[in-house]
Amino acid sequence: MNKPVCQIAAALVHHPVYDRIGEVVATSVTSVDIHDIARACRTYGLNRYYLVTPILAQREMVDRVAGHWSEGAGGKAGHPRGPALELVRTVHDLQSAIEDFQLTFGIRPQVAVTSANPMRDATSFADLRKTIESGKIPGLLIVFGTGWGLADSIIEKSDIRLEPISGPTEYRHLSVRAAAAITLDRLMGVSIY
Amino acid sequence: MNKPVCQIAAALVHHPVYDRIGEVVATSVTSVDIHDIARACRTYGLNRYYLVTPILAQREMVDRVAGHWSEGAGGKAGHPRGPALELVRTVHDLQSAIEDFQLTFGIRPQVAVTSANPMRDATSFADLRKTIESGKIPGLLIVFGTGWGLADSIIEKSDIRLEPISGPTEYRHLSVRAAAAITLDRLMGVSIY
Repeated sequence: MNKPVCQIAAALVHHPVYDRIGEVVATSVTSVDIHDIARACRTYGLNRYYLVTPILAQREMVDRVAGHWSEGAGGKAGHPRGPALELVRTVHDLQSAIEDFQLTFGIRPQVAVTSANPMRDATSFADLRKTIESGKIPGLLIVFGTGWGLADSIIEKSDIRLEPISGPTEYRHLSVRAAAAITLDRLMGVSIY
Repeated sequence: MNKPVCQIAAALVHHPVYDRIGEVVATSVTSVDIHDIARACRTYGLNRYYLVTPILAQREMVDRVAGHWSEGAGGKAGHPRGPALELVRTVHDLQSAIEDFQLTFGIRPQVAVTSANPMRDATSFADLRKTIESGKIPGLLIVFGTGWGLADSIIEKSDIRLEPISGPTEYRHLSVRAAAAITLDRLMGVSIY
């Protein structure tokens, strides 16, 4: 019997997120967020990386960058960015990412949100890793927030709230790129020795 | 009895590193490498973050950015970048980072190098984590390469060669920011649940 497989995608949300004073805003998409998180998604075997922004011009920018490296001149040159940027899709809100996932994989994903702050009824990384490996859930969408974090409206509608990433200090200000990489490593990373 | 403590620093090397065709080059320091890795170093309790480049103008740029956030106008505003950028030091080569570590902490650090490719006599993350926790080594300098990785001349002089970071795929092209974050998490990360 084949091992049960969980289809996994990541979403990086640029709206609705908080700014430093707690207002709901739309942040700008940055080039480094496209590339770094796409490369981490490819490393850890994810099937899609959704960039979520209501701003059409920014979705068009992302599509141009991803197209260049996956199908255009950059892709033809065989640069390793190609296989990573093939995973990129742009959507105007998180609901559209869920719908695209469902259309693509035939599964409604469980939505797991992340935060630098503890959330109620949080799930540990170890527990979610076990759930993925057990094949108990067939689809998972891991959601990261830019700015000062995902708005409560996103968190309230989620199925799974992941524990915050911690080191041995009280400092909790990782970049979203670092947090996404660590999250994927904690859930899907392996040691070869 | 107090738990033995290991003083830990990170170094990001911009020379000597390889470019895509295997030539030894000096890469440019990028703003996102300063900020992202400094924030990860602070999260995981490191004591120093060395940016290593032979190019004086780039060391001066780093010193200005770090000074702004740790002591200047940015620092006074209480932004969380401050405590991270306080860890930053610029040096012209890796030997100078080792000497600064020794001067600052009174300990010659063990030098652990990282690579996306397997190295001979590699140490697993789990083993190095146990060594750190046991207090067997009093000082550790974890070295990351930009570009296409650290030159062999750096790897040959190291004390510890860490295993490459792996996910469930063969793709090994994480950004150095992601690799540094994952490395620190594998060595010092904790789960609070």
